[in-house]
Amino acid sequence: MTYTCVRRSLTRKRVSETRKFSFLFCYFPSLSLLKVSFFYESSCALSSETGRYNFKMTEKAGSPLARTVLQQCLYARLQVKPADDQSEAEWVEIDRGMVVYICFFKGATEEMIQKIVNTLLNLKLCEADSGKYVSVLDLPGNILIVPQATLGGKAKGKGMQYHHNIGKEEGLQLYSNFVSLCEKELALSSNSSETGMIVKHGTYGNRQVLKLDTNGPYTHLMEF
Amino acid sequence: MTYTCVRRSLTRKRVSETRKFSFLFCYFPSLSLLKVSFFYESSCALSSETGRYNFKMTEKAGSPLARTVLQQCLYARLQVKPADDQSEAEWVEIDRGMVVYICFFKGATEEMIQKIVNTLLNLKLCEADSGKYVSVLDLPGNILIVPQATLGGKAKGKGMQYHHNIGKEEGLQLYSNFVSLCEKELALSSNSSETGMIVKHGTYGNRQVLKLDTNGPYTHLMEF
Repeated sequence: MTYTCVRRSLTRKRVSETRKFSFLFCYFPSLSLLKVSFFYESSCALSSETGRYNFKMTEKAGSPLARTVLQQCLYARLQVKPADDQSEAEWVEIDRGMVVYICFFKGATEEMIQKIVNTLLNLKLCEADSGKYVSVLDLPGNILIVPQATLGGKAKGKGMQYHHNIGKEEGLQLYSNFVSLCEKELALSSNSSETGMIVKHGTYGNRQVLKLDTNGPYTHLMEF
Repeated sequence: MTYTCVRRSLTRKRVSETRKFSFLFCYFPSLSLLKVSFFYESSCALSSETGRYNFKMTEKAGSPLARTVLQQCLYARLQVKPADDQSEAEWVEIDRGMVVYICFFKGATEEMIQKIVNTLLNLKLCEADSGKYVSVLDLPGNILIVPQATLGGKAKGKGMQYHHNIGKEEGLQLYSNFVSLCEKELALSSNSSETGMIVKHGTYGNRQVLKLDTNGPYTHLMEF
């Protein structure tokens, strides 16, 4: 008799709900082997313990490292600098395309940015004039990127906590790379030269004053 | 030596990714007890098997049954009837308040609606004039409810699948109850009579043409 076990099933979210630390056991009677993982809150560090069983470490839990919410738009306008004594507020705007709200969690890495960009730009989320769904690259559409730390929030009582969000400097770096890669991918797209697709983006860490005009926001959640 | 185990950690999502069925084991050496659960794909049916250990069933897996995305707004306008030959399009609109996009998954029940409403209306997500965060009831703010089936999407390749979304009739019923309960809670609120807070909502199953004007969308994800 052999058993298998889904090791990635214990997410960081769940672990943190337990307040302390949790164990996930996989027992293989045919091998007399007990596989155990300790998941500590937040860090998801793995530990092992020896005993009368043979303990092995498992891979890390599969909680998201980045969360995006995607909305389709006919027009969107984002304030990138508020008005002050010297000058009026500054805005960026796009016509038809996609608004990408993005938030990074602790543990997010540069390596994952390319995958996120590839996924978001190639997912068939946009309704073409034909009624068929195509990617934002194929629409062709524009992209407005909105840094949105609140997406990392977790309710505690009536308040929100953002303990899992990445630190500001690291987040800014990842965000900048994300924007750059989106711009690069759009520039490489065969549709770009003909139609002048653009990427616009908000300023990391600041208030995102947004105006959105949709023909159906088609709100999607994508986690990485 | 006694161990505890997070039983709800094996989510339906994870299970469905395994394609077949998966096991979660909790081993209690001090009791010589092995607790095992079999999670079948999609249905999350639980089964047990006898052997040389004492098997027990555990509670159901904890994947979300409802997903909401919340955005703050200064003004929002939603089309509830498109224009046709006889009449112009009809819209509902709210001033300052919160837009709630909601999607129900298979397995969602009437019983959970009250909890969802209580949570969403009492979470401190809204920035008051003082800069402090308060609930939409305390703001006091208005609520625009947008049925948003796309929130239940899961990427497969470049396409999106909505296999976990609830069926249309059940979804409509839950959605109607959700709207009614929001209206009821707002009417009961002490702020309501003074300020005339309102709940507006979209039509289930139809295209949601939305215009949104924010002072920072403060996009939050809440799952139940």
